[in-house]
Amino acid sequence: MALKGRVLYDFHSENPGEISITENELVTLFSEEELEGWLEGENSRGEAGLFPASYVEIIRDHITSSTNNNGFSSPKAKTQTPTHASHPSPDSQSQRGFGAGSGGSSFHTSQGSDDDWDDDWDDTSPAADAPQGFGSSPPLYPVTTSLPGRGSAQQQQQQQAKSSATVGRNLNRFSTFVKSGGEAFLLGEASAFVKDGDRICVVMGKHGPEWQEDPYPFTCTIDDPTKQTKFKGMKSYMSYGLTPTHTNIQVNRRYKHFDWLYARLVERFPVISVPHLPEKQATGRFEEDFISKRRKGLIWWMNHMVSHPVLARCDVFQHFLTCGADEKAWKQGKRKAERDELVGANFFLTISTPAVPLDLQEVESKMEGFKTFTKRMDENIVVVNATINEFAHKQMAGFKKEYQKVGQSFKLLAQAFELDQQAYSAGLNKAIAYTGEAYEAIGDYFAEQPRHDLDPISDLLDLYRGHLANFPDIIHVQKGALTKVKDCPKQEGDLHDRCNIISCATLAEVQHFHRTRVRDFRSQMQHHLRQQIGFFQKITAKLEDALQRYDDGQ
Amino acid sequence: MALKGRVLYDFHSENPGEISITENELVTLFSEEELEGWLEGENSRGEAGLFPASYVEIIRDHITSSTNNNGFSSPKAKTQTPTHASHPSPDSQSQRGFGAGSGGSSFHTSQGSDDDWDDDWDDTSPAADAPQGFGSSPPLYPVTTSLPGRGSAQQQQQQQAKSSATVGRNLNRFSTFVKSGGEAFLLGEASAFVKDGDRICVVMGKHGPEWQEDPYPFTCTIDDPTKQTKFKGMKSYMSYGLTPTHTNIQVNRRYKHFDWLYARLVERFPVISVPHLPEKQATGRFEEDFISKRRKGLIWWMNHMVSHPVLARCDVFQHFLTCGADEKAWKQGKRKAERDELVGANFFLTISTPAVPLDLQEVESKMEGFKTFTKRMDENIVVVNATINEFAHKQMAGFKKEYQKVGQSFKLLAQAFELDQQAYSAGLNKAIAYTGEAYEAIGDYFAEQPRHDLDPISDLLDLYRGHLANFPDIIHVQKGALTKVKDCPKQEGDLHDRCNIISCATLAEVQHFHRTRVRDFRSQMQHHLRQQIGFFQKITAKLEDALQRYDDGQ
Repeated sequence: MALKGRVLYDFHSENPGEISITENELVTLFSEEELEGWLEGENSRGEAGLFPASYVEIIRDHITSSTNNNGFSSPKAKTQTPTHASHPSPDSQSQRGFGAGSGGSSFHTSQGSDDDWDDDWDDTSPAADAPQGFGSSPPLYPVTTSLPGRGSAQQQQQQQAKSSATVGRNLNRFSTFVKSGGEAFLLGEASAFVKDGDRICVVMGKHGPEWQEDPYPFTCTIDDPTKQTKFKGMKSYMSYGLTPTHTNIQVNRRYKHFDWLYARLVERFPVISVPHLPEKQATGRFEEDFISKRRKGLIWWMNHMVSHPVLARCDVFQHFLTCGADEKAWKQGKRKAERDELVGANFFLTISTPAVPLDLQEVESKMEGFKTFTKRMDENIVVVNATINEFAHKQMAGFKKEYQKVGQSFKLLAQAFELDQQAYSAGLNKAIAYTGEAYEAIGDYFAEQPRHDLDPISDLLDLYRGHLANFPDIIHVQKGALTKVKDCPKQEGDLHDRCNIISCATLAEVQHFHRTRVRDFRSQMQHHLRQQIGFFQKITAKLEDALQRYDDGQ
Repeated sequence: MALKGRVLYDFHSENPGEISITENELVTLFSEEELEGWLEGENSRGEAGLFPASYVEIIRDHITSSTNNNGFSSPKAKTQTPTHASHPSPDSQSQRGFGAGSGGSSFHTSQGSDDDWDDDWDDTSPAADAPQGFGSSPPLYPVTTSLPGRGSAQQQQQQQAKSSATVGRNLNRFSTFVKSGGEAFLLGEASAFVKDGDRICVVMGKHGPEWQEDPYPFTCTIDDPTKQTKFKGMKSYMSYGLTPTHTNIQVNRRYKHFDWLYARLVERFPVISVPHLPEKQATGRFEEDFISKRRKGLIWWMNHMVSHPVLARCDVFQHFLTCGADEKAWKQGKRKAERDELVGANFFLTISTPAVPLDLQEVESKMEGFKTFTKRMDENIVVVNATINEFAHKQMAGFKKEYQKVGQSFKLLAQAFELDQQAYSAGLNKAIAYTGEAYEAIGDYFAEQPRHDLDPISDLLDLYRGHLANFPDIIHVQKGALTKVKDCPKQEGDLHDRCNIISCATLAEVQHFHRTRVRDFRSQMQHHLRQQIGFFQKITAKLEDALQRYDDGQ
C-alpha cells in the first residue's frame, strides 16, 4: 500500500527535481526515508520529485503523526520525533556549546547516531542552522547544494546577532556544572574503569599545572575538497582528504564527520576547550569562496586539535584520523566512541594530578584573573575583527578605486600627449601611459591583498572567539566545584581531592590556552607583517619599473 | 581745510585700527591718498582709524565725485577712475589674459603706472580678485592681511567656476588679432627703431622654427619670503629675495613687482606664452600654506621665465632681476619699460626669420594640429588635476583614518593581552602594541605624502593650464594673419613676408612649449615616482621594524 502524506504548507519548486505542493493536498510518498531533509513522492497532478519533508505530515493507519511535529526542520531535531525514536535519549547528549556557544559563536554540536549517518543529510543545508519554526508559519526547508546563496539573509541576521561580545552571558550556569558531570564527580558519584591508556596527566610546570606533552606529536594536512554526488547526481557534498603525519595515509572525511567528532569531544572533555568547527554555512555568495573559507577554517581547527596534548591523543580523534574506507571498521569505532563511558563526570577519573595539591585560594584568584582576561579579550577581538574587516573592504573597494582613477587619469594625460607626434615626445608618452597602468595594477594589488594578510587574522580571531565562548562553562565547572567544597566543610577531605583534580585540569587547560594564544598570535602577526612588507615591496617594484621608463626615451 | 567724505554704505570695524562708519555720515579724511584700498580719517563720533575707501565719497568744492564711482574695489580698477586719471589710456593696456584667461585661469595682468607703486596696495587683499559690486549693494572692501581667511567663500566659488576646460572659448577673437598688433604689423603699419640688442632670432631647427637659444643661460633662486610691515605695523607684505646666477646678487621683490613685470611682458610679446603668476589669493585657510604655495608657484614661474630664450633675455625682465635697492634706478628702468615702443605690432619688427620662408599651408596644418592638441591637453589635465586632488584628499583623510583605526585595534588587542601577566606573553604584547603604533605612523605617512608628490604635479598642471589659456589668442594672431593674406591676394608679396614672420614666431613658441612640456612632465613624473617609491619604502621599513619586535621576546 502506497504511503500517503498531507501537505501542511504551500511549497513552490525552484529547482529541477523539486515539485510544487499545496496546503492540504494529498501526496504519495515513494519512501518514508528522508534524503537530507527532502522526501521523494508524487503530487496530486501526477508530478514526481522532491519536496521538503517538514512540509508534509505522513498519514499512518489510524495514527496521524507529523513527520516533524515540533516544527524543527533540522535533521538533528528530527531525530527526536516519534518517527525516529530508535536512538539514545536526548539527556545523554552534551548540551555544552549550546549555552554560551549559541550566543557567542555560530558553531554547533551534532548528536551521534547511526540514523544520522544513514540519513546522510546534506552538509551545506542552511536549514540545519536556521531558526526553528513556530506557530503555523511553514518551517524552513532544506536547500539543495546547487543553491548556496539561499537562506543567506537569515544567516547574516544570525551573524549580526552574534557579533557582540558574549563571554559571561551564560544564563544556565548552574546546570552547566551539573550537566558537565562536574558536580557528580565532586560528590563521588562517578565510577568507571580507567585503562592506563586513558589516563591523562597534569604535571606541574614553570607557570603552574599543565597537560603533559604528547610524546608523539604529529600534524595533519587537509587537501582541497573534492565534490562527490549521490542520488543520481541530484545531491552533492564535499569530501576532504586528511593525511596525518603519524600514519601518512590519507582518509576522506565529510563535514558531517567533523561535526560528529566535535560532538563526541565536547561530551568527552568537560573542561577542555574544543575548537569550534568553521561555520556550517558561509555567508559568502560564491560556492568557491565558501569552500575555500571552510577549508581554511578546518585547517585552523585541525592545527588546534593536533597541538592539544589531550585532544590529539584521544581515541575518537585517532579513529577519525586513521580509519580507512572500511565501512565496518568505521562503524565499529563510531559505536565505541558513542558508548564511551569516560565522558562527563567520568572524564575526571582519568586525570592524574601532581603530587602536591594546589592551594585552592590561589586557584580561585587565578581563575578570577582568567575570567577578566577572557572577557576583555573577547570584547577587544570583536573590535579588531570589525576594524580588520572594514579595512579589508576599504582596500578592496575604495583604495583600489582611488589608485585606478589616478592610473586612468595618467593614461588620459598620455593620450593627450600622443596627439603631439614629435619624436622627442614619444618616450615620455609611453612612460606616462605605463605609469597609468602601474597605478591600475597597484589598485588591483590593494584589492587582492586582504585575503593574504587580513583574512587569516580574521580566521584566527574567529577561532579564538569560539574558545572564548567555551571558557565561561569551563570556568563555571571549576567555580561550581570550589563553591561546593566551601559549602560542605564536613566532607572536606575527599571533596578537596576531587576539587583539586578539577582545578588541575582546568588550570592546565587555561595554561594551554595561553600558550597556544601566544604562539598563534605571534605567528599570525608575523605572517601579516611579512605579507604587508611583501605587498609594499611589490608596489615599490612596480613604481620602480615605471620610473625606469622615463629614462628610456630621453 | 580738512578734507571731508560722505559715507555711502555702513561699515562695521572688525579689526584694531578700523573704525565703523554709517551711511550718509560725514567723515574727516586725513589724506586723500589710499592705503591699499583704505582711507584714514575720523568719524562723527570722533573715532580715528581706517575704513574702506570705496565706502566713502570724497566731497570736493562744488564737484562731488565718488572715490570709486564704477563700483570696482580693486586698486587696478581704481586707477581708471577720474580721481586717478594721470596715466596711460586703458586702450594701451594688453587685454590678453582676460579673454581666455578670465575663464580659464585665475591669473591676471596689472597695468603699470607710477600711481600703482605709490598707492602700494596690499598684495594679499582678497578684494583685488573678488567679483565687482553692482547696483546699490556696498562694494567689497579690502581686507587686512591679518585675516587671511576672509573672502575665501567667494574665492572658492570662483575656483569652482574655473574648474572646467576652457581653451577655445575666447569670444573676442577678432579683437585679439587687432589688439595684439598682429593686424597692424601685417598691414605694414608698424614702425619703430630696432636696435641690434632687441633683435629676436628664429632659426630653423630639426623640428621646425625655434627660438635661438640663449647663449648665456642662467637660473634664479627665490628665497623664503620675509614679512615686511608699514603704516606703523598696521599693514604688512611679503618680500621675496631673488638671486639670479648671472649676477649672483640678491634683489628683493614683492608680488606686485612680479605682477607689474607680467603685464609688461604680455604687452611686449604678442605670440609668446608668458607663464601666469600664481594666484593673487590662495584658497588655503592658513597664511603659512598660502605663502608656501605662492612661493612654489613663483619658483615654477621663474623657471619658466629663465628657460625661455626670448623672455629670459628681455630688458624688462633683466631690470627686474638685477636692479638693486636704488629707488631712482628702479623707477628709471620701470619708466623705460613702460615706454617701450617695441610692444604689440612693433614686436614683430624685432623678429629675424630663417632665410627660407615657410610653406604657409604647412603652417596652417601645423597650427590646426596644435589647436587640437591644446584643447585635448586642457580637457585632460582638468581631469588629472581633479583626480589628483581627490586622491590627495583621500590619503589625508580616509587612508589615514583606516590605517590609524587598524593601529588602534592592534593596540586594543595588546591591552587585552597585557592582562595576562605571564612572562612568555610579555614580548608578544609589546610587539603587538608596537605594530599598532607602526600602523598609526603609516596613517600619518599617508596624510603627509600628497604634499610631496601630488601637490607638485598639481602645481605643474596649474602652470600649464595658464599656458593653455594663452594659446588660443596666440593661435588666433597667426590665424588672423593667414586669413588676411588669403583675403588680399594683391599685396601678397609684403603680406606674405610679414605673415611668415608672424608664423615663424608662433611656431617657434609652439616648439618651445612642446620642449618645455616634455621636460617638465618628464621631470615631474620622475619626481613623483621617486617620492612614491621612497614613501612605500618608508612604510616597508616601519613594518620591518615592527616584525623585528616579534623575535625579541620569543
